[in-house]
Amino acid sequence: MDRRGFIASLIAGAALPALPGHGFGGAPRMHGLIGKMRAQPGQRAALAAILLEGTAAMPGCLSYIVAEDAADADVLWITEVWDGTASHEASLALPAVREAIAKGRPLIAGFESQVRTRPLGGQGLPAA
Amino acid sequence: MDRRGFIASLIAGAALPALPGHGFGGAPRMHGLIGKMRAQPGQRAALAAILLEGTAAMPGCLSYIVAEDAADADVLWITEVWDGTASHEASLALPAVREAIAKGRPLIAGFESQVRTRPLGGQGLPAA
Repeated sequence: MDRRGFIASLIAGAALPALPGHGFGGAPRMHGLIGKMRAQPGQRAALAAILLEGTAAMPGCLSYIVAEDAADADVLWITEVWDGTASHEASLALPAVREAIAKGRPLIAGFESQVRTRPLGGQGLPAA
Repeated sequence: MDRRGFIASLIAGAALPALPGHGFGGAPRMHGLIGKMRAQPGQRAALAAILLEGTAAMPGCLSYIVAEDAADADVLWITEVWDGTASHEASLALPAVREAIAKGRPLIAGFESQVRTRPLGGQGLPAA
């Protein structure tokens, strides 16, 4: 399994292609993920709790927000910002994350979209 | 124009339906938006700069992150978390936001998706 994938997609059993972790100039850059996950019917709240519990202390994680879709009762959105691909990759070996993967997987119906981004800045990120 | 829409969709001239700003119990809840915006060819960096400059000081904004799509050179993702719909709505009257709307609109080819969410928690949000 691709260890660079979303924590969430790892839980779901999906995978993403690898991307370089550095810009053309060699400077590290932020790494972002936006994922849409469908829970098994009625399991969204339980799945969200697992995703939040397992991700409370991840080095290099600048933002990790779990949100309900306002229009679809089974959908969660997970938006992540990391200080680079390496810290994201390393997070997947953390015991709490591995436990979340094991607990969350049976509650997931599917991963409907997953987008890689390069966050540029904004509010809610640590000051550079 | 719907004043509850994305700042970004307001710039693009799009609109979203209104949603209640409180949960069933009457408690205020967070309000989130995830938007995918396509810039005019070659204009993504300029558009991103406008979106970041105009949104640096918005009361009630808990997170506002502008990110490049890693796979599509003209696409930006804007992810927002607000302490409720009222502060989001109020932000659209801020002079800096209104200026960003005017400056950004000509650089936008289209708004490809926009999702309303109810953020539950995570990293990168102020402590409750």
